[in-house]
Amino acid sequence: MSASAVGYAKENAGRFLEELKTLLRIPSVSTTPEHKGDVEKAAQWVASELKRIGMEHVEVIGDGPLSKTGGHPLAYADWLHAAGKPTVLCYAHHDVQPPDPLDEWVSPPFEPTERNGNLYARGAVDDKGQLVTQLKAIESLMKKDGKLPINVRVIYEGEEEVGGERIAAFVREHPERLKADFALISDTEMFAPELPTLTVGLRGMIYTELEVRGAKSDLHSGMYGGVAPNPFVALAQIIAGLKDREGKILIPGFYDDVAKPSADELKAWKALPFDEKEYREKEVGALALVGEKGYSTLERTWARPTLDVHGIVGGFIGAGAKTVIPAKATAKVSMRLVPEMTPEKAFRQYREYVDKIKPEGVTVEVRLIHQGEALVIGTDNPYVKAATKALKKVWGKETVFIRSGGSIPIVGDFEKFLKIPSVMMGFGLPDDGLHAPNEKFHIANFHRGIESLIEFFDEAAS
Amino acid sequence: MSASAVGYAKENAGRFLEELKTLLRIPSVSTTPEHKGDVEKAAQWVASELKRIGMEHVEVIGDGPLSKTGGHPLAYADWLHAAGKPTVLCYAHHDVQPPDPLDEWVSPPFEPTERNGNLYARGAVDDKGQLVTQLKAIESLMKKDGKLPINVRVIYEGEEEVGGERIAAFVREHPERLKADFALISDTEMFAPELPTLTVGLRGMIYTELEVRGAKSDLHSGMYGGVAPNPFVALAQIIAGLKDREGKILIPGFYDDVAKPSADELKAWKALPFDEKEYREKEVGALALVGEKGYSTLERTWARPTLDVHGIVGGFIGAGAKTVIPAKATAKVSMRLVPEMTPEKAFRQYREYVDKIKPEGVTVEVRLIHQGEALVIGTDNPYVKAATKALKKVWGKETVFIRSGGSIPIVGDFEKFLKIPSVMMGFGLPDDGLHAPNEKFHIANFHRGIESLIEFFDEAAS
Repeated sequence: MSASAVGYAKENAGRFLEELKTLLRIPSVSTTPEHKGDVEKAAQWVASELKRIGMEHVEVIGDGPLSKTGGHPLAYADWLHAAGKPTVLCYAHHDVQPPDPLDEWVSPPFEPTERNGNLYARGAVDDKGQLVTQLKAIESLMKKDGKLPINVRVIYEGEEEVGGERIAAFVREHPERLKADFALISDTEMFAPELPTLTVGLRGMIYTELEVRGAKSDLHSGMYGGVAPNPFVALAQIIAGLKDREGKILIPGFYDDVAKPSADELKAWKALPFDEKEYREKEVGALALVGEKGYSTLERTWARPTLDVHGIVGGFIGAGAKTVIPAKATAKVSMRLVPEMTPEKAFRQYREYVDKIKPEGVTVEVRLIHQGEALVIGTDNPYVKAATKALKKVWGKETVFIRSGGSIPIVGDFEKFLKIPSVMMGFGLPDDGLHAPNEKFHIANFHRGIESLIEFFDEAAS
Repeated sequence: MSASAVGYAKENAGRFLEELKTLLRIPSVSTTPEHKGDVEKAAQWVASELKRIGMEHVEVIGDGPLSKTGGHPLAYADWLHAAGKPTVLCYAHHDVQPPDPLDEWVSPPFEPTERNGNLYARGAVDDKGQLVTQLKAIESLMKKDGKLPINVRVIYEGEEEVGGERIAAFVREHPERLKADFALISDTEMFAPELPTLTVGLRGMIYTELEVRGAKSDLHSGMYGGVAPNPFVALAQIIAGLKDREGKILIPGFYDDVAKPSADELKAWKALPFDEKEYREKEVGALALVGEKGYSTLERTWARPTLDVHGIVGGFIGAGAKTVIPAKATAKVSMRLVPEMTPEKAFRQYREYVDKIKPEGVTVEVRLIHQGEALVIGTDNPYVKAATKALKKVWGKETVFIRSGGSIPIVGDFEKFLKIPSVMMGFGLPDDGLHAPNEKFHIANFHRGIESLIEFFDEAAS
């Protein structure tokens, strides 16, 4: 049954890619209010595709009580006619990160362009390309067999990049509408080209704003330099106090609940094909990799908490000189968390510590923008095993199990409210440039991703 | 002779204020390229006024070799028919700071508005209002007497707010065209309302940019948090390393050349009417005044070097969240210098120190945007004495001698290349809001300023 569906996917590869481009042309940036209409448009496009390929109960969920959150709509659909077979809950997201800095894009971010076997566009791999692998796997099975081998529910969200409040609320409030045996998350990457990969661990996060206020209004640095508190200097002092030069976070108690990976897991990570020099030079492109001493690169990105600053709002950022002591400055600061840390405790420790180390003369407000739980998935569950079989069929190799340094908060919610495990099977590559200019999806991986999902649905049925 | 000119100024007070408003309506912001035409327009307006009031050899100097610097034009004029009398070189500037943040202005920055006896506009006091006090003193003397009591040269610049490169070059290259016995600088303030003030000391400055680069492009903080250098964190560490929490600058050797004010000067400062509580609450509006321990507020702002950060360019500063590790970040950092420090040495010490304390994994470029020398003027010179006599006539009080924490680099250039002292007589008030939203000029001070300059020209002649 899967063979014919795979054949259909191969025959329609060109059309599938063109249809992905249509979705990529919608600038569904969820992080800024001005694109709200575009995120809605992306949800509607996804819903009409779900209808076209034969899914049922298709719905764009964005009215009613949920709209009060001011968020972006969800798209739901199901097909539940595989009696006696398990049910998969398919998840992906149709929103994207902002494309800035715009001037670093080789081709426009919302005009998908093929170059060197890749498709370049904002959202190409994160996550529209991967969402479409699900749509096309379902379409291929449905068109060829007139039915699916397992029961399928689909829930796509439009605010993954801004914390996913709405889907979290939906999962919490309507678990019966998402009843399934396992979830399929298409939002991860492969460890290396040609290396089939399942992600079995995710970092959590807290994303915060640190707002520092000094004088009541902007002051001249000649007249008041030496007496007026400078919010930028205060922020620098606070940030420098949060993390030392070795990358160690200085918040008291922050590492207390950190769970160490198992000896087996650490051993498997060591066996992964990883060239640190090439990673540093080609992928990161920095003089040195930084971070905590005594931990490998993979441990630091997968299994250790970290702290980053994303930007500082305020003051004078034009060309040339303005001699101002700004009245306020706001830093965007996030922390990645690992199993067994909780966002609530991490945020409380952070806020209390900032309050303790803030310099004289300023007030500091610490705001939580969003949060997500860290987690690990057991590799012994039957759906993870079915996934490895499917991947072997398409890629001809054993699957490697990795973690991701990123956060997919919904996986934690599925575990907590639906009591189901997630299979995180994705086809991105390490150099795809998520969240960066010139984001891409390797076109061959798009097609093999579709085939892998066809095989996975088939394996999961048996 | 001065009495009739003062009478003329009083009769024409209303017209004088309206003419100032005309100049204030020109948004001659010199710090951003898009207002280049407006700065030129302000220079032309000033030149046409100089012509109208009877000055000779009026010229807008902005063509020829000087234009290669890409700067803004100077306005020159002279009247040299007071045989045997000294020559004054009048200086002011017709450019202004940017008005941002715009939403904090009660009335539009380039629509001068009268409220509570003040005139509100960007440049009201810094420095268009003070420039016009000179024009109107000359006009009053010329219209009433048909001549001036002393020889007058006028040089107005249009890039004081961006470092004054062009006027510095002109002074250096054409000292013969500015030959005078002393300069009159109209760009300072009074210590308190009703307290005639001469400024006899200025801080110098270096304005710099610190550009930190980490990875070759923006990276996802989930994937790379823990290995990729974060330029914002690196900047925070560098900035926190430049100045301690007590306001002491940590650059080695930075204080080596700092000259202590004389015992007399310190004693006079102590006698000034200064309410530190009111200053902190009303003028600065901060929880606490910060800065070096062991120095008074006036010492810290007048006689001690300081360091401020004005803004940090780069990263994500939109609403909401973007989980990016930016490839670069640039901090705008300036230092105020005091006599006997030199900008060259201070910049060298700073650059070397930054290079020493920069964290691993990043490159740092330190750029000098502009610089100015600190200086003190002797209170025993005859023109300072003439100024105190003139001020007593108009204000009925003895003059106080203060320093300013700000920088007027041209005063140093006049001293160095023209070998003349400067009389810094200004009529701003401490709460005028230089460089801030709702900048104002007290209208009574505008008029008494004109009268003071009429009397000063007269006194300087005898």
